Amino acid sequence: MVKLYDVLSCKDLDKEEFLHVLKKASEMECLVSKKGKLNLLEGKIVTMAFFEPSTRTRLSFETAAHRMGADVVGFSSTESTSVKKGESFEDTIKTIDQYSDVIVIRRADAGSAKRAAEVASAPVINAGDGPNEHPTQAMLDLYTIMKEKGTIDGLTIGLIGDLKHARVMHSLAHALSNFNVKLYLLSPEFLKQPPEVMDHLKAKNVRFEEVSALNDEIIKDLDVLYTVRVQRERFPSEEDYLKARGSYIITPNLLKKARNDLIVLHPLPRREELPPEMDDTPYARYFEQARNGVYVRMALLGVVARVL
Amino acid sequence: MVKLYDVLSCKDLDKEEFLHVLKKASEMECLVSKKGKLNLLEGKIVTMAFFEPSTRTRLSFETAAHRMGADVVGFSSTESTSVKKGESFEDTIKTIDQYSDVIVIRRADAGSAKRAAEVASAPVINAGDGPNEHPTQAMLDLYTIMKEKGTIDGLTIGLIGDLKHARVMHSLAHALSNFNVKLYLLSPEFLKQPPEVMDHLKAKNVRFEEVSALNDEIIKDLDVLYTVRVQRERFPSEEDYLKARGSYIITPNLLKKARNDLIVLHPLPRREELPPEMDDTPYARYFEQARNGVYVRMALLGVVARVL
Amino acid sequence: MVKLYDVLSCKDLDKEEFLHVLKKASEMECLVSKKGKLNLLEGKIVTMAFFEPSTRTRLSFETAAHRMGADVVGFSSTESTSVKKGESFEDTIKTIDQYSDVIVIRRADAGSAKRAAEVASAPVINAGDGPNEHPTQAMLDLYTIMKEKGTIDGLTIGLIGDLKHARVMHSLAHALSNFNVKLYLLSPEFLKQPPEVMDHLKAKNVRFEEVSALNDEIIKDLDVLYTVRVQRERFPSEEDYLKARGSYIITPNLLKKARNDLIVLHPLPRREELPPEMDDTPYARYFEQARNGVYVRMALLGVVARVL
Repeated sequence: MVKLYDVLSCKDLDKEEFLHVLKKASEMECLVSKKGKLNLLEGKIVTMAFFEPSTRTRLSFETAAHRMGADVVGFSSTESTSVKKGESFEDTIKTIDQYSDVIVIRRADAGSAKRAAEVASAPVINAGDGPNEHPTQAMLDLYTIMKEKGTIDGLTIGLIGDLKHARVMHSLAHALSNFNVKLYLLSPEFLKQPPEVMDHLKAKNVRFEEVSALNDEIIKDLDVLYTVRVQRERFPSEEDYLKARGSYIITPNLLKKARNDLIVLHPLPRREELPPEMDDTPYARYFEQARNGVYVRMALLGVVARVL
Repeated sequence: MVKLYDVLSCKDLDKEEFLHVLKKASEMECLVSKKGKLNLLEGKIVTMAFFEPSTRTRLSFETAAHRMGADVVGFSSTESTSVKKGESFEDTIKTIDQYSDVIVIRRADAGSAKRAAEVASAPVINAGDGPNEHPTQAMLDLYTIMKEKGTIDGLTIGLIGDLKHARVMHSLAHALSNFNVKLYLLSPEFLKQPPEVMDHLKAKNVRFEEVSALNDEIIKDLDVLYTVRVQRERFPSEEDYLKARGSYIITPNLLKKARNDLIVLHPLPRREELPPEMDDTPYARYFEQARNGVYVRMALLGVVARVL
Repeated sequence: MVKLYDVLSCKDLDKEEFLHVLKKASEMECLVSKKGKLNLLEGKIVTMAFFEPSTRTRLSFETAAHRMGADVVGFSSTESTSVKKGESFEDTIKTIDQYSDVIVIRRADAGSAKRAAEVASAPVINAGDGPNEHPTQAMLDLYTIMKEKGTIDGLTIGLIGDLKHARVMHSLAHALSNFNVKLYLLSPEFLKQPPEVMDHLKAKNVRFEEVSALNDEIIKDLDVLYTVRVQRERFPSEEDYLKARGSYIITPNLLKKARNDLIVLHPLPRREELPPEMDDTPYARYFEQARNGVYVRMALLGVVARVL
């Protein structure tokens, strides 16, 4: 029924596939709370091929693999790999493939997870390919929304921040395009979603508005506010940054017109765009969101290894 | 009964708690020798948050976690963490906390383990916070003494070396203050225990003498000699170092008046203060001491996770 | 019967021991295909003491340890070890020895695995000691030959490339000397096997020919062609390199006179000496060879831990 094999991009997946993953993630969460650890991937090797450092995504995947009963091997930077000996990327993957049941890859260049999937016989999961996509992050975002709201269809969701450079925003927009949502795309003019994403939203008939500042009218309308960092150095000048800044820093005061059940999400790590004073508001769900990553990744590991 | 939750400092613990840990460590040693691996922490994730490199403490804890049946994730330096992305320490810990059942932390700044415990819901074990404390080392020291001597009460114990900078000496002095021991604090004048530790010893009515050189009278009196490195660069001048040096290098010759059942301990790694020629004497117990670390850390992991 | 305890050098082993390891590796391969993971080393700690970076050997060993049911701890570079604190190599090993059931060591200096074995009570496996030996690689090479050919006795085997500096060529020559093989040692004059290896081959009455170029007569005769990198910088001049180069780059065209059942092996990583166009020929077995490493290392871990 569900045809997931590699998890490379949110563009590849349809609504049924997303819902399948969310359903399985929910089952994993339930089973983990009862048993701590399952044996669904017992005897399987999950290889973490992290050519680029990462703490949270790597630890989240490793935890997920352990909780599924798998064993984990891998590397967390290219420092300790044969890449330094001049080996081609394809050879590294083909070698890893000889002893892996699932390969999880993070690498700085767009498309590298896809290249890996082309030469590996084991399933490949993209854990972030540079500026391109971060599909498992988008899935845990969906899972968090579904868990908190009971639905994704019918929601009004604001995506705010640097929509141009934040790969999670690309993956999330692609994922949400499968659902009946209304999107506010909130960013400065020069940090808007790239044309490729916009074309996709149009092709899928997603209702969206592009807005350059978060105002009370929009805030009142939101079920979910998803925020990412806006880097000072992306702005044409310090002056431009200081002018725009206020709209992209989510404070309790900015949200004073928000609905009671608004939830605020963030992929973390955060900087000034989401000050710690937000943590005690009823809106904050970003640490729960990080926790949900484990269940979603358990589900994905299980699905690609054909045990879920 | 025993109220251990976080293991942050030896100052927090009373005699009953120390004895509980030692008793559980002894049980773990017995079980490991029979079964190799227990299942007390099966389904639990122990996260090694090592912001500072360490071999022996990290491997010892990881071995302990595996032998308890837990799975282990983590990082062994800040190179591969989001700290480089400007994330606050508290956020890193709060994120790790989402998928950890126990957090073991090493970090260069004093008090960081305590800061972690304040924001984490999982129990936190301090695996060394800079110059401050290294409580699990002190506990394995106590365990080694108890195992070798059958008691801690009634013993005469010499602590020799750089008592000012060696955090294990601070933790050990705090730990020993709960027992009826006599301490010789052997160091050059300018490398004495810090006032905070001395005040604690006085408050607890510990019998101690501060002495600047190890002589035959003291040696005859000792049940245990605990030595740490004295770094050449701590001395005012090379001349001062060369003058003092002989008293802080433990040789078979220096110990010729020692009792037959004296034991010599060292937290390792060692340098010239404990030459390899000591290894074949009947006094040497420092490698056994390293081995004991696994049992003590098994016990601590089990106690803070509420399974022991 | 079989007296393997440490695996330090292929020189230490006799034919019976090699055949024992190959037989056990074959059993492991069979069991892994049925069960994924065995419990032969359950409750055992395998410590990866990698003082030098390595991807494929480390991941292969870690996978093997997991598939045997062991737990794995260790380090993958000296960055995170006490070596930086000035600890002696022997002390590091003696400390690791306190909590390890098997120690797997890689280190840049020849003889270091042997030095480790001298101070450790746990068995030590040499995973490459600089220019010296890489015995487990040679054993997986033998295993691949045995698996593909059904025998090692009676085969004609070409070793081509930098026979002087490639440690795997030393280990493999030592290993093959126990069998009734004919060897072609193919290298430029100044990259021949070192005298110590040649003496060994002579002492064991191995039939061999040293040849400086691979010609059709030899190719027709070969059952196995084992190739390693020839580094440009080993040649006296760029001119010499360019002249010799053609003989050491294995192409489908060079092999046009080869027997149908010739197999080409390579320890990987490869560079220009084995172009990707070889991958689709019926001769290529080097990725299968990498896969075989896991079964051979499972067998070795089991044999030294006395469970096989």
